[in-house]
Amino acid sequence: MTTWNTETISDVIRVAHLAADAAKSETLKFFRGTNLSTENKDSGGFDPVTAADRAAEQAIRSVLAAERPQDGILGEEFGTSEGETGLTWVLDPIDGTRGYISGTPTWGTLISVADESEPKFGLIDQPYIGERFLGGLGVSSMTGPLGEKPLGTRETDALTDATLLTTFPEVGTDLERRAFEAVDRQVKLTRYGMDCYGYALLAAGQVDLVIEAGLQAYDIQAPIAVIEGAGGIVTNWEGQPAHEGGRVVAAANETLHAQALALVRSVVDG
Amino acid sequence: MTTWNTETISDVIRVAHLAADAAKSETLKFFRGTNLSTENKDSGGFDPVTAADRAAEQAIRSVLAAERPQDGILGEEFGTSEGETGLTWVLDPIDGTRGYISGTPTWGTLISVADESEPKFGLIDQPYIGERFLGGLGVSSMTGPLGEKPLGTRETDALTDATLLTTFPEVGTDLERRAFEAVDRQVKLTRYGMDCYGYALLAAGQVDLVIEAGLQAYDIQAPIAVIEGAGGIVTNWEGQPAHEGGRVVAAANETLHAQALALVRSVVDG
Repeated sequence: MTTWNTETISDVIRVAHLAADAAKSETLKFFRGTNLSTENKDSGGFDPVTAADRAAEQAIRSVLAAERPQDGILGEEFGTSEGETGLTWVLDPIDGTRGYISGTPTWGTLISVADESEPKFGLIDQPYIGERFLGGLGVSSMTGPLGEKPLGTRETDALTDATLLTTFPEVGTDLERRAFEAVDRQVKLTRYGMDCYGYALLAAGQVDLVIEAGLQAYDIQAPIAVIEGAGGIVTNWEGQPAHEGGRVVAAANETLHAQALALVRSVVDG
Repeated sequence: MTTWNTETISDVIRVAHLAADAAKSETLKFFRGTNLSTENKDSGGFDPVTAADRAAEQAIRSVLAAERPQDGILGEEFGTSEGETGLTWVLDPIDGTRGYISGTPTWGTLISVADESEPKFGLIDQPYIGERFLGGLGVSSMTGPLGEKPLGTRETDALTDATLLTTFPEVGTDLERRAFEAVDRQVKLTRYGMDCYGYALLAAGQVDLVIEAGLQAYDIQAPIAVIEGAGGIVTNWEGQPAHEGGRVVAAANETLHAQALALVRSVVDG
């Protein structure tokens, strides 16, 4: 098992910042470019989104190769490499590529570190706004246009007072959509289109619930660490750990999580 | 009729910036506050969203009273005051209050100036990101985290290549939703939840269409000026000027506008 001593903790956090800084240089090179589009490949097959995504992951991997060469890596673009320390860096260089190609400031770079059991530290970076949300290993804070602030989830304890976020109204399969709608009908306000930024807003105490489906491990491990560091709870729709991805309910607190999960399960279980 | 001489033009633009700066101080005082909510009135009835909205409009009105006292004003919060110059400032201090209370960076301050015929100059300000989009009176540019850039709409000429934005999946009435869906089914990508930021992205050449319903004059006059300044076109669902609000189709160019409008009308006309 990994020993999380003070030295390891501070080094992991230091390297996570370096990695996010390196990714930011790459993602901002292409963001808001003219006619940026996944379909807009030139005659040589150049695709600026894929280029940005790969360049950003490569930049992160270069930092890790230099700073933490013994750790493992699981990345969206370049797969898995085994490590020797028990620690694995889980990377999504551009989470929310559809937001990225539409110019919205809701995509992000997700960087997290898991030990043998679960994600322990995570970072959600929104390079265009200049915001970075951190959680885990004793840290729960953000930096952004208004300076540095602590994170902390809300105490909302009733769905009728809650704000719910998801990325797409259709959510996933028909069953998944109906499960989402069961919660949607109960809450005070539902908003769409936030990509991974929704998880950051949950950790920052701005909204109460995020419900999504069809996620990959690298989509959710950083959000899990950030949200749980801020006092929230994230599980899959069975109420189990969500770090392998799939269907996710993220909530500001256990009370609200239990209410949302019960509604989702009432649909899924028929 | 108003005479748009060089002096008037530069003064209107100067004052619009002053007004947006004044509003920004007020909107950012409350944005991302703990448990900010329209429902979260304390025992004294204090409502931070209404407070921010009113304080921001008051700040703009103070600037106008000092700098352009002869102009008229139409504001969301404090109504209409007649002017003597033929110019009217049309104000929405916080467009997208639901985004504002959810912490999303998609709300904005809308400031525009109309003469007797139509909006001539507009400004969409996103204070948290630090972005300002301008259009009209010979200006078409934005400032933001990446510096100053010209605005300009896309040349996308087919719906199948287009990205469509709207704020809510439900759009408006059932008929309005079905009209929206007729376009939604044809486009490459639809995204939600952007509030007035969607119009800014259209002017910046990042997306191709915004379709909404139920708008007020103060919701749309600034976007009209910014989008038309950038080469786009905005009309209501009858193809007429949209500056009184209502149902709106905003498009990157006339070709795309005609295609979207035809689909919308095919539903509305039954």
